Amino acid sequence: MDIKINVEESVDDLQLKGLKLIQKQQGFRFGVDAVLLSHFANIKDKHRVIDLCTGTGIVPFLAYGKYSPKEVIGIEIQEDMVEMANRSSLLNDTTDIVKFVHGDLKDKALLDSLGKFDVLTVNPPYKLNNAGIVNPDDKLAIARHEVMCTLEDVIIAARRLLKDNGRMFIVHRPERLADIFGLMRKYKIEPKRVRMVQPNTKKAPNIVLVEGQRDGGAFLKWEETLYVYDDNGNYSEEIDRIYGRK
Amino acid sequence: MDIKINVEESVDDLQLKGLKLIQKQQGFRFGVDAVLLSHFANIKDKHRVIDLCTGTGIVPFLAYGKYSPKEVIGIEIQEDMVEMANRSSLLNDTTDIVKFVHGDLKDKALLDSLGKFDVLTVNPPYKLNNAGIVNPDDKLAIARHEVMCTLEDVIIAARRLLKDNGRMFIVHRPERLADIFGLMRKYKIEPKRVRMVQPNTKKAPNIVLVEGQRDGGAFLKWEETLYVYDDNGNYSEEIDRIYGRK
Repeated sequence: MDIKINVEESVDDLQLKGLKLIQKQQGFRFGVDAVLLSHFANIKDKHRVIDLCTGTGIVPFLAYGKYSPKEVIGIEIQEDMVEMANRSSLLNDTTDIVKFVHGDLKDKALLDSLGKFDVLTVNPPYKLNNAGIVNPDDKLAIARHEVMCTLEDVIIAARRLLKDNGRMFIVHRPERLADIFGLMRKYKIEPKRVRMVQPNTKKAPNIVLVEGQRDGGAFLKWEETLYVYDDNGNYSEEIDRIYGRK
Repeated sequence: MDIKINVEESVDDLQLKGLKLIQKQQGFRFGVDAVLLSHFANIKDKHRVIDLCTGTGIVPFLAYGKYSPKEVIGIEIQEDMVEMANRSSLLNDTTDIVKFVHGDLKDKALLDSLGKFDVLTVNPPYKLNNAGIVNPDDKLAIARHEVMCTLEDVIIAARRLLKDNGRMFIVHRPERLADIFGLMRKYKIEPKRVRMVQPNTKKAPNIVLVEGQRDGGAFLKWEETLYVYDDNGNYSEEIDRIYGRK
């Protein structure tokens, strides 16, 4: 089968069971957040999984490669990204399992048409949309700023998409943690587990991973901090393990 | 002046400007939480400071020794502790500045009689009071479990005691952080700054320090993690500095 790769695109090897990912050479390319999120998520082979703000589809492909879930659906509001992610799925011969849907996570009819999920993952835009700063036609801005959806929109969608006691896994910035906890509880998704990520032991955390459970009981477990680099400036052993390099 | 020290008490040197603290030899003795809390608090010499759940008065004495505030008042519900803390203040010749009041922080008339404060500190009981487990006559239980006051009682008192834009500083356990953020926001004390404390770089955080501001704007700063021990099992340099040993 011939899969079209456009001139401005690259095909990157995910170093995981031969999986590949089509990305724009100039544009949003996946980073450590997506890798850490897919590592943090607890996914079983019997699970239906949904990934919000899926972009290139990196989190669904990593989830597929690591956990072999029954089905993974990615939702994305930018139509050209969905088309590109679906070509990645063709390229990987995973179209029976890894699927992408074009749409807005605020569209309740769309969400309801997808059924209920055991697990939801999301790497949402991090930055508050301070009016006037961001051009809403800018694709990088849509990935990074809350232009098209807010954190509250994400949590509302999670509430709707998850089965009873289903789990959501979100990667975000520590400065938004009061918002994340507050919104999760507002929509009855109980924060159950947190992991902070620091560049190294000396620097403040700059990434946070949070697990929430729909209608879960209150107990929050705080895990060991994850350091991206060791004291010598090399990737830490744990990061090497997560990236499958050791 | 002769200050009575009872046979079951010890007089401990705080290693700070000659300050001393009377404690029960068998009973609640101050620990790293109080030291970290007084270090984390931003207190100026012009400030009126109040410390809730003050116990032996350790946090007021450390705040006095470190920052020379205009006044520090400690509130404590156990009358014999208040009597002991007031004897420590006599011993330190600080009774004009460091004062202790016997009472319940849920007593609104008492709180209103104390006026408003620039800074509030609190090292509250950590553990949820799971009915039936704790004997409410047990003094250690009162210090450790939410027997006499809940986290919500503490935050309600802070709201009432703080001046506009006044700051509260709380030391607690990471597993309660969703509760802390949620209750602060419920009573319009905005979480502004967090510092996690880990036993060492390998272990999960087991203490959290949070600063909140009455009617503050939303921006949460996450600080560098504080490690109590270094990789060789010795106190870390920062802990030595905080304890005044370096």
